Parts: sequence; C-alpha cells; structure tokens
Amino acid sequence: MDSEQLREYGHRMVDFIADYYKTIETFPVRSQVQPGYLHNLLPDSAPDHPETLEQVLDDVKVKILPGVTHWQSPSFFAYYPSNSSVAGFLGEMLSTGLNVIGFSWVASPAATELEIIVLDWLAKLLNLPEQFLSKGKGGGVIQGSASEAILVVMIAARDKVLRTAGKNALGKLVVYSSDQTHSALQKACQVKVLKADTSTNFALRPELLQEAVSLDLEAGLFPFFLCGNVGTTSSTAVDPLADLGKIAKSNEMWFHVDAAYAGNACICPEYRQYIDGVETADSFNMNAYKGLLTNFDCSLLWVKDQYAVTEAFSANPEYLKNKASEANLVVDYKDWQIALSRRFRSLKLWMVLRLYGAETLKSYIRNHIKLAKVFEQLVSQDPNFDVITPRIFSLVCFRMVPIDDDEKKCNSRNLELLEAVNSSGKLFISHTALSGKMVLRFSIGAPLTEQKHVKEAWKVIREEASYLLGK
Amino acid sequence: MDSEQLREYGHRMVDFIADYYKTIETFPVRSQVQPGYLHNLLPDSAPDHPETLEQVLDDVKVKILPGVTHWQSPSFFAYYPSNSSVAGFLGEMLSTGLNVIGFSWVASPAATELEIIVLDWLAKLLNLPEQFLSKGKGGGVIQGSASEAILVVMIAARDKVLRTAGKNALGKLVVYSSDQTHSALQKACQVKVLKADTSTNFALRPELLQEAVSLDLEAGLFPFFLCGNVGTTSSTAVDPLADLGKIAKSNEMWFHVDAAYAGNACICPEYRQYIDGVETADSFNMNAYKGLLTNFDCSLLWVKDQYAVTEAFSANPEYLKNKASEANLVVDYKDWQIALSRRFRSLKLWMVLRLYGAETLKSYIRNHIKLAKVFEQLVSQDPNFDVITPRIFSLVCFRMVPIDDDEKKCNSRNLELLEAVNSSGKLFISHTALSGKMVLRFSIGAPLTEQKHVKEAWKVIREEASYLLGK
Repeated sequence: MDSEQLREYGHRMVDFIADYYKTIETFPVRSQVQPGYLHNLLPDSAPDHPETLEQVLDDVKVKILPGVTHWQSPSFFAYYPSNSSVAGFLGEMLSTGLNVIGFSWVASPAATELEIIVLDWLAKLLNLPEQFLSKGKGGGVIQGSASEAILVVMIAARDKVLRTAGKNALGKLVVYSSDQTHSALQKACQVKVLKADTSTNFALRPELLQEAVSLDLEAGLFPFFLCGNVGTTSSTAVDPLADLGKIAKSNEMWFHVDAAYAGNACICPEYRQYIDGVETADSFNMNAYKGLLTNFDCSLLWVKDQYAVTEAFSANPEYLKNKASEANLVVDYKDWQIALSRRFRSLKLWMVLRLYGAETLKSYIRNHIKLAKVFEQLVSQDPNFDVITPRIFSLVCFRMVPIDDDEKKCNSRNLELLEAVNSSGKLFISHTALSGKMVLRFSIGAPLTEQKHVKEAWKVIREEASYLLGK
Repeated sequence: MDSEQLREYGHRMVDFIADYYKTIETFPVRSQVQPGYLHNLLPDSAPDHPETLEQVLDDVKVKILPGVTHWQSPSFFAYYPSNSSVAGFLGEMLSTGLNVIGFSWVASPAATELEIIVLDWLAKLLNLPEQFLSKGKGGGVIQGSASEAILVVMIAARDKVLRTAGKNALGKLVVYSSDQTHSALQKACQVKVLKADTSTNFALRPELLQEAVSLDLEAGLFPFFLCGNVGTTSSTAVDPLADLGKIAKSNEMWFHVDAAYAGNACICPEYRQYIDGVETADSFNMNAYKGLLTNFDCSLLWVKDQYAVTEAFSANPEYLKNKASEANLVVDYKDWQIALSRRFRSLKLWMVLRLYGAETLKSYIRNHIKLAKVFEQLVSQDPNFDVITPRIFSLVCFRMVPIDDDEKKCNSRNLELLEAVNSSGKLFISHTALSGKMVLRFSIGAPLTEQKHVKEAWKVIREEASYLLGK
C-alpha cells in the first residue's frame, strides 16, 4: 500500500469508470455471452508474478465487460434498480480506503455513530414513528440485504417467543406472509403462505390471515411472526398494514414490514400513505440502493426494541471486551446482525444525503414514477397489450393480450417476447407470474434513464411483438 | 450520475485517500473519542438541499477521522488485520462503479464466472483436495464473513440430516467445537463447547470429541456438525484435522474447517502442513481480507458438495427464472448464500492476484511472520514478560508475569497495561483470556507494518509496563 501508487492507479481507475459511464449505452444491456464463456479466456491458475494495471484493465474491457449485464444502463428495466451515483460511489470509495471493521464501537466509533445518526435522518424523512428512532429503545442499522434484515428480526422474534413458550415450541412456530412476499422470506424459514390475488391487487387479505392464525392456534401451534409488504417484488402490491398490525398485536406476533423497494418512494409526502399503519409494526426495512442513489449494498432496518435483537445476536467473547461496551455506553452493531464484521456503509448514505439533499432525492423518485406513467400510457393505448395491475410506483406490469382467450399460448408468447427483447441487447426487462399469467415487468429506476429511453424501449417491445404476431 | 462529475469528484476522492495514507502515522491508532461524540457535531436531520464536496470532505477530516480507529495504520496490532492494498482498493472501486447485482448467472455472467475461476485459483494455491474445485461437485463462493460461511454450511448440514432423520430431530441436533472457536459459531447456533487448554496449546482433543459424541448418541441426540479450527481467534491454535475428520466421518457428521485467519498463511508451502487433514473436511473457509491484501469483505468458502448447499438455499420464484438457470447450465450464487443479492466481489480478489502474483503474496505473509518472530524474541528476553502460547503465525500472545504468584493481580495489571498502551494512541493491541489468564495479543498483519513499527511498539509497551511496576 504505497500512497503514491494508490494515487496514480486510483486516478486511472476513476478515468476507466468515468469512461465506462460515458459509453454505457454502447453495450448490450443484458450480457449476450454463453454459459462458461470466461473459462476459456482466463488461465487455469493465478500468476506467480505481478502483471501490469494495463494488462488487467485490458482484460476487464475485453473479457469481463462482455459478461456484464449493465444495471446502470439507462435501458435497464429488469428486476428492481440498483442505484449508483457519484456520491454513493465516493462514499463507498472512502469506506474501502479506510477499510475499518466496525464490529464494536471501539473498533471505529465513527462507523457506529454515523450509522445511528444517518438512520435517524432517514427515519425522519420517512416520518417513521418516534419509537424507531435511536433516542429511546429503538434504532436503525444497515444490513447487506433485505433477506438479512428479515432473518435478523425473525430470529429476534423467535428467541423472544421461545423465552416464554419454552424451547419445545421450536417445531410449532409459524410465520405468515402473502404469496407475494419476496423469496428472501422463504430463504429465511418455512412460511405459511397466504394466497393473494387480483381481487385485492395482490395485497394480503386480513380475514385470510385471521383465519389462518385462528386455525393454527386451535391446532396448538405458535403464530409468532408476520411479514407485511409495501411494494411486492412481482407487482408492488401494498398490504393493508394497519389491519394486519391489529391482528399481529392481538396475537402477540412480531410484525415486520418489508418495503425494500417501495419504501424509497415514501420519503415523498404524497407517497407516505403507503406505509400508513407502520406504527403497528415492530420492524421495518427498505433498501436505499433500490431508489436513493446509494450504491449496493445498503438495506436499512429499523426496530422498536433493539434489545430483542441484541438478546438474540449478542456474543461477547473476551477478545472483544472493552471499557465502552462493558459500561453499556455504546451500541455494538455486531449484536444487530448475523455476521461479526461489518463495513463502514453509513459513509455512502451520508454522502448521498449531503451531496444531493432530501429535496433532490424526492424529485429523483418522482421523475421515475412520472416516466412509469408515460410507459403505462403507451401500453394501455396499444390494443395488443394490457396493463395487468394498477401501477403505483415506477413498475409497470403488462403483457400481450391473449388471442381467442388462449391463456396458455398467451403465456408462451409473452415469454417469447421477453427473450426477443432481451436478446436484442437494446433493453433488459424481466417477468413474473401473477395468478398464473406470465407478466412482463418494466421497472424504471436507473439513474441515467430519461424519457427517450422509455420511449425507445417501448418501440423495441412493439416491434418485437409485431414480429411475433406476424409469424 | 454524470460521467464528468464522477471523473472530477473521483479524482478528488482518490487524492483525499492517498493523502490519508501518506499521513496515517499522525493519527492515534485507536480513536480517542468519547461515546456519543459525533451526535453533537452533526445536525439532527438530513439537509434539504445539496452541500458541496468541499464541505463534506472537511467534515470527514474534522468530524469523522477523529472517530476512526485506523486499521491500516502500521501500528495496528489488535484483533486480526483487515488488509487494504492498491489492487484491492481498485477492485472494489471497479465493482462499485459497475454496481451490478449478480444473484443469478444472467444478472451478470462475469460476476459468477470470475468468482468460480478465482476461487479455483485460490484452492490451487492452498493445495486443497480436487473435490473442492469447481470441475466436479464442489466449488468455492465468496461470503461476506466467516460467520456467514459457517452459517451457510451448518444450514446445509442441518437440512441434509433432517432429510433422513426427519423434522422431529430438529430439537436434538448437536454441533461440536472447541471453546476456542470464533464467536461466529455461537452466533450461528447453540453449540456443545469442548474445553481446550494449555496441554494441547488450546487445540481440541479428539478423545474429548469422541466421548461427547458417544454420550450424545446414547442420549438419543443427533451429532451432525463439527467445526475444526486452524488458527483460533484467541491464540491461533490448530486442531488436529485428520483425527477430528475421522470421528466426524464415522459418525456421519459434516466437518467444517474454519481457517479464517491462518488459512492465508497456508498458501506458503512451509505452512501448508497446518491444514493437513483438510481432505477429510466437507467445507473450508478462510478470509482473504485477513492476510491476502484484499479489502474487506471477502471470506472464501469451499464445499465438496455444492448440492447440499443449494438444496438448502435455493429459492426459485418466477421473477428470477431464466433460460440458463432452467437448463442447469450455470451456477446461481444466490443459492449458495443467505441473501439473494450480492456484489461483484471476485473482481478485487482477481486484481490482487494479478497485480501482485502469488509469489509476492507469499513473501508478504512470510514477512509478517518474520516480524512476529522479532517481537516474540523481544518479549521473551524481558524478565517482566512471558510469551504465553507458542507462536505459529504472526500473532504473539504474551503478558506481564505475575508477581508472588498473584494471578488475580497479574490479570488486572495486564488489563491496565492494555488500556495504557491503547490510550497512548501510539499503537493498538487487544487481549483475550486463555485458561483464565488475561493475555495480550500482538497481531501483525497491516500492510504498512515494518520492523521499526514493531520495535517502537515494544518500546511503548515496556515503558508503560515499567511505569505500572513502579507505581
């Protein structure tokens, strides 16, 4: 680690990345390589001796970039966005430069304290209830992903219920969520999945939950955790939080609200309504990298009772003991997460908030939603296409309509269209299934996306569709 | 995201970080701030409007850096190292710039394929058995931390045993490890902890394991997971892998080897012996950020049977389906980890291996071990100090000797010395407990550490000790 070499090489890498952004529209959005392509391009083992930065950067250009799917392309409309910004990039660079591991306060006090402060800032922007702020029992923490956030609160909830119900209840615990919940939850545990359908635009029906909980209680099971959604992955459905929260509360269940994607929009007063009812929740998460210009990874989790979390996750070996922790004067974030070690991730969120300011972030979000409205209108004006669920945020779910009511053919035609569009390299969209229908997802949220990209994308989709219909 | 602003601001940030490294020795190594220091220095809420990069960088200097404990300081000897290097920094910068989320192959083929290749490279450098390489059923994956790596294989092992033993066995599963195992394991599950002591230099005794397993089997329990250590956190103890592996195998237990720290040294042929017996393991992990110049986070995990892992972690919602995955032509790393999303972390490891080459990395590791020998010698020549366990790698465990056999006073004197040394700001060391003795840990591994820093550190330690003895 030579500071002058860092300077020289760092400048070259910055130029390389700036040039990448300058030319990003020249790449096929979805990588067009075949499985295994890289194996033949790289040697079988690590070099014994140093190679030059030139050689490595050449290889990045020639061998790596063709295998990259360009999430930062303005024509990336698949999945949900992964935001990159100058501020987010700088913050991550600084964090990488300092390269501290802030597992406990003493290991780098600023890493812990800045995280507490910035999570309070965000909680205020979201107008979260006071109990989620750090001044009382609550507080926020940065997790890597929504999956981790959900796993953390679920384990906290589990340990809490087991403390009163006894360890033998372990095999009888039940988690509830709608079938629209992100697969993160399935990864975290076995879930009682409640069906959501078009009648509620894929929101969870409280009656269905109440019924399931009652049946399980009768059967001697322990309902202990409910995951509500604000903005499901498939179609941005919004569960009725207040009603769900009531049921959770009356059954002493932990109520978690996953707003990974849509939570970002809720910093705008006009969208805040979608998390109304969050006051009934025990915990809440949203991913700042999905809409707040903060580079991945950055998933924000707030809890009302930090002690429920630390009781589950605290490990205190002698080699980590220190005066500040022993005196209970500080937060040790190692006790709020699965891993021990952690990066200084609050730096990038802090730099985003300062270099852009809250109002700019709101305009940024609003612009994506405005572009989604444009796309929605284009789709609905075309008789060959249908918008499938009401657009709420910046995702439009749509499909080619069935011909002669043949749903099966319609599904495969939409999948054909998906493949044709993505193989063109001109844009990248993804798909989902809603009540058995194959649906195309057009998700707007890349920082560089402008109206012209949306219109150009629609043109490509229409052309490919015409071609398919003509066949 | 404006490419020219990225260029301009990026250059300024590179200069800021290069200047930081240039002046890193002027900071107190362990931050000297008081709990809550930052709260009064920052506003209560995020700004509405943009601030300048100047303002933010000034705040980093004036408000953040005083709260940073400088893990990259050449006088950082606490815990274990967190390596930063020019190559690791560049790799992370590139990964942040591309900002792709490689959960499945199609989401960025290069992210998956480079990871497979680079993990094979490392496996070869470590001379791991063929079964850990990707060409068969095995393979490697980058996790964020050792805790995650261990949790992943433990869940894989659990699901595997439950498939044959039935779900009712859940409450009867037993995990084994020595009491020297990293707290990561405690965080992952409830563990049957087996005592290790000075008689084996804190390595786990196979007889003890055999006895515990036999008793548990008689009691109708299911032993299913054993964690062996190469280089424990407290004192770099090395468990006898081959003997432990035999016991694991004959009881059909999953055998995991955690070499988070010491695994790095095992790329040198003369240290490879410490993972002899790894051929009996089902999985193996080491943290490249602890000694291989790769910026945090980067924990490498290899398994012999990738399907045991993917069977436990695979989630396959419609919205992630794609041709390459459906055709089973590719690896989808989302099925190898807790989270769905993941960064392009292999870039930094790849850049480290190419820009430095394997031989340079070996010399780098050897140099730290050489410096540790120097420190060990200095300690053992001083009648007021003792080296407590045999030094194997670059950690020296030592303490001030007891006076009049008063162990209690000796413990508190060593803790006093610890605090005095760390409060000086001249170096940072940490401590542990070994069989009830408070022991100081002098862990060498920061990239900038040279012999003069080790000697200067020893001088400070001796001076503070003299002062304490004189009181």
